[in-house]
Amino acid sequence: MTVAVDIGGTKIAGALVHPDGTMTATTRRPTPRGADGDGVFAAVAEVVAELAGSPLWSAAVRCGIGSAGPVDTSRGTVSPVNIGAWRGFPVQARIEAELARHGAALPTVLAGDGVAMTAAEHWLGAARGHANALCMVVSTGVGGGLILNDRLHPGPTGNAGHIGHISVAFDGEPCVCGSRGCVESIASGTAIARWARAQGWTPADPHGDASAAGVAAAAEAGEPVAVAAFDRAGRALAAAIAATATLVETDIAVIGGGVATSGDTLFAPIRAHLADYATLSFVRGLRVVPAALGTHAGLIGAAAAAAMLLPGT
Amino acid sequence: MTVAVDIGGTKIAGALVHPDGTMTATTRRPTPRGADGDGVFAAVAEVVAELAGSPLWSAAVRCGIGSAGPVDTSRGTVSPVNIGAWRGFPVQARIEAELARHGAALPTVLAGDGVAMTAAEHWLGAARGHANALCMVVSTGVGGGLILNDRLHPGPTGNAGHIGHISVAFDGEPCVCGSRGCVESIASGTAIARWARAQGWTPADPHGDASAAGVAAAAEAGEPVAVAAFDRAGRALAAAIAATATLVETDIAVIGGGVATSGDTLFAPIRAHLADYATLSFVRGLRVVPAALGTHAGLIGAAAAAAMLLPGT
Repeated sequence: MTVAVDIGGTKIAGALVHPDGTMTATTRRPTPRGADGDGVFAAVAEVVAELAGSPLWSAAVRCGIGSAGPVDTSRGTVSPVNIGAWRGFPVQARIEAELARHGAALPTVLAGDGVAMTAAEHWLGAARGHANALCMVVSTGVGGGLILNDRLHPGPTGNAGHIGHISVAFDGEPCVCGSRGCVESIASGTAIARWARAQGWTPADPHGDASAAGVAAAAEAGEPVAVAAFDRAGRALAAAIAATATLVETDIAVIGGGVATSGDTLFAPIRAHLADYATLSFVRGLRVVPAALGTHAGLIGAAAAAAMLLPGT
Repeated sequence: MTVAVDIGGTKIAGALVHPDGTMTATTRRPTPRGADGDGVFAAVAEVVAELAGSPLWSAAVRCGIGSAGPVDTSRGTVSPVNIGAWRGFPVQARIEAELARHGAALPTVLAGDGVAMTAAEHWLGAARGHANALCMVVSTGVGGGLILNDRLHPGPTGNAGHIGHISVAFDGEPCVCGSRGCVESIASGTAIARWARAQGWTPADPHGDASAAGVAAAAEAGEPVAVAAFDRAGRALAAAIAATATLVETDIAVIGGGVATSGDTLFAPIRAHLADYATLSFVRGLRVVPAALGTHAGLIGAAAAAAMLLPGT
């Protein structure tokens, strides 16, 4: 059994994950707002305490912690963009202390949420069987992770696969990160909606959805600006997916996240443009597919990352 | 001892490489022009025969083959852009047969020249001691290779690290490969010279050097178009180096090749712009340094790749 904890800006979830990926004792708390660092951690401690109440607790052999990033796995700290009270917060040591308090001094692994999602898709999802894979989340932001040589590649600080902040337009518009032309600044849900509105698109119903989901609905109905917004995002994603394959020889890109739920509205332009950017012989077979795991990818990923990175346990 | 063979569009070289990287029995032949596939291979066979004449031949335990790309190490074939007679040529099996003919049925490794150069710089050059490194050649073209987790990462077909053909301008100009905005189409020596001439630059002496070396000399003298040409190349390289670090957490980029011999003319703009693209906390320490190995990097790299990829030998 693996103790899995998934920390995000909205919720903190926990579960005991069986070796086949099924989950027991799943629990969650809203991420405290307006609390200080210890106040946010109190919700994590409650999640751990609830898991410790399970009759299966004594069967746990390791703990995986997935967290919104940036993370620094070399220090065990996290500084999630959406949890302002945590800056360099030593979440790994604090969770280890909670585990010990509940009689379980387990080895732990900390992974960023993109890396955890990648571990989940490789274990049980769309990247299963692929020795070299890029997994991505296209949502409010754009994140990701890499499988190389059949292993998770988190990098020394756990941030590898951060495809949202590679530049596909070196002369392009500034990104919030300080760089220019980042994939996230062109292809995130936020960016898609912003670009469509800047081109004059508005929801047909003035009280309608002006987010990327609204743009996706308009694109499905053939509204030209909305179609162009997804085409532009698809081109940027295709260029970035091709760049990754050209650099490390990934043969599949798995995409999950809110924007990916629009299905072919996103995937059709990515696939159409992929052939334009993935031109060298060794990347021509590159495929782009939707993620297979939904709601619980974070918890499954935390468990999968722990299993992959603690092979002796 | 390692038998090293380095195959390029201009020359075919060979050596016996000692465990400390020194070389014995170094030999070379011009790459035959206008010959068919077997005619080109005859020069390789001569190189092997000459090495086999060395008194140290019987001490060889493995053979490393570096070749101009594209390569396909999964099949042992090469299709070098500058050796038109070789398309899918089974160079690895053919060299194995030559080795056997000379009494040395050795295990062999085939590596692309970018991967071989990377192995050399990690073994004895500027990437020594770096567990995660990008090594590049900026010359007529732009190539490269990756060290990840202290190991060479050639990828399944031996082409990983192909940074010249990642797009840093997804809406940019077409590249010869069929994609758009590739690093090579902006930052190779060919591209630097082409861009400078298109902006009206000519050598001060009408019979002077109109290649990238001429542009570099003009840039050193402060000629504004020449300075701008290297600045643009430096920005594209900085964006690509930052993208690689953001994807796989490399902490150093080593650059060799003809254009890199212009020194600060190339390195100063790369370093100046790197801070613009390498913005996330985990890539801020990224360094860019010149390659340390010169003329013999190809042979040393072929030997280093064999030693790294045949660890049991």
